[in-house]
Amino acid sequence: MKAVKLVIGNKNFSSWSMRPWLLLKHFGIDFDEVQVPLYQRNTAEKLGPLSPSLKVPALLHQETTVWDSLAICEYISEALLDGKGWPASPRKRATARSVCAEIHAEFPHLKEHWPMNCKASVDLSVPEPIANEIARIDAIWSCCRRKHGAGGEYLFGRFSIADCMYAPLAIIFNSYGAVLSAEAQRYADTLLADPWVQSWIAQGQAEPDDTASLSIVSNQ
Amino acid sequence: MKAVKLVIGNKNFSSWSMRPWLLLKHFGIDFDEVQVPLYQRNTAEKLGPLSPSLKVPALLHQETTVWDSLAICEYISEALLDGKGWPASPRKRATARSVCAEIHAEFPHLKEHWPMNCKASVDLSVPEPIANEIARIDAIWSCCRRKHGAGGEYLFGRFSIADCMYAPLAIIFNSYGAVLSAEAQRYADTLLADPWVQSWIAQGQAEPDDTASLSIVSNQ
Ligand SMILES: N[C@@H](CCC(=O)N[C@@H](CS)C(=O)NCC(=O)O)C(=O)O
Ligand SMILES: N[C@@H](CCC(=O)N[C@@H](CS)C(=O)NCC(=O)O)C(=O)O
Repeated sequence: MKAVKLVIGNKNFSSWSMRPWLLLKHFGIDFDEVQVPLYQRNTAEKLGPLSPSLKVPALLHQETTVWDSLAICEYISEALLDGKGWPASPRKRATARSVCAEIHAEFPHLKEHWPMNCKASVDLSVPEPIANEIARIDAIWSCCRRKHGAGGEYLFGRFSIADCMYAPLAIIFNSYGAVLSAEAQRYADTLLADPWVQSWIAQGQAEPDDTASLSIVSNQ
Repeated sequence: MKAVKLVIGNKNFSSWSMRPWLLLKHFGIDFDEVQVPLYQRNTAEKLGPLSPSLKVPALLHQETTVWDSLAICEYISEALLDGKGWPASPRKRATARSVCAEIHAEFPHLKEHWPMNCKASVDLSVPEPIANEIARIDAIWSCCRRKHGAGGEYLFGRFSIADCMYAPLAIIFNSYGAVLSAEAQRYADTLLADPWVQSWIAQGQAEPDDTASLSIVSNQ
């Protein structure tokens, strides 16, 4: 048994689970993956002892339980990466935390209507509220790349928590055919080409089509 | 002009603005308050140069702009408080960050249907989705007080970012007449008795009833 245990949901659609998973993988932290299939009769029962919010992801490390993707990423950076999950410059770090908080709490229309689904490839018309949210994410990506992206292909140059927080959006934009600026599309392509992102997608696609993922497909 | 500038909205209803304001006040950081009345014809124009997300709060310090309440609280703790915004013990800090992330991103029904309104005192029936969210916050408050509250009256003993993130909920629960467990109510009372919370409420109540606050009242 490894010292770090990450509790995740279905890879096909649990975008929140993907975020800390990607952080641990990118920084080479060895961990046990505990997968709890979501929206099953016994999901809450299984999550009870693992996650106080009854949601995924949650992380268990020694005596500590941390839940919620953003708090988990902060914890991983602080406790396991000596702060390296964030950009080293205080100013870049402040921007990185701002854009992470934004994707964490905002974008209600995208979250409701365009859930991640690694198996989906559809071409939908884009209603205005979603188009506005895509435009904001496009601006965040382009602006971070332009102002802070020197020294690497990621939002703040080298890979950071900010890339974990936005990676599912690259999958979503790709599935639903969102049209981005050239700069934002280049960054989305970087994320999609990332070996760990590819590995998550492949594992999500390999999951059986249970009720939960089917109900998401039918929402589209 | 002071080194720190906090951009906030109407005190009467901008619960997100209240959070970093309370943190700065509690730790005695001197700052300029820039108030931008929300939902006016020129709000976006005024916020444009101050906040990249066009939302409040935002914080300006030297060359740095940070936005979103949670990122601002992290920044204040790191850059201005030498980390003292969070509990000192790594385990308590992990829990504090988890419960802060939870209030930041979750509780959609409370956020939609019970907005903060410092002037309101109503007695509404509580629909089940809201009752469930109140129960979860009650559990968070009681559990933090019981497990981590030694040495003070706040969630983690002494005052921390977690109390800033939950303070607006004490005002909301008080306005709408939510019924809490004795333990959670004791903590809500601690927050409501806090001099800085009282000062925020008084300033909110003194604001003119503009369209924005009226439209929130009429939502109830
Ligand atoms: N704010 C949370 C969101 C977590 C979340 O909503 N997880 C979903 C799966 S992606 C979940 O556990 N859903 C089960 C449920 O809501 O019952 C985070 O950032 O981790
Ligand atoms: N996730 C943001 C939420 C900020 C937010 O929604 N602020 C509201 C006022 S409390 C706002 O600026 N609304 C104006 C708008 O949405 O146009 C945070 O934590 O700061």
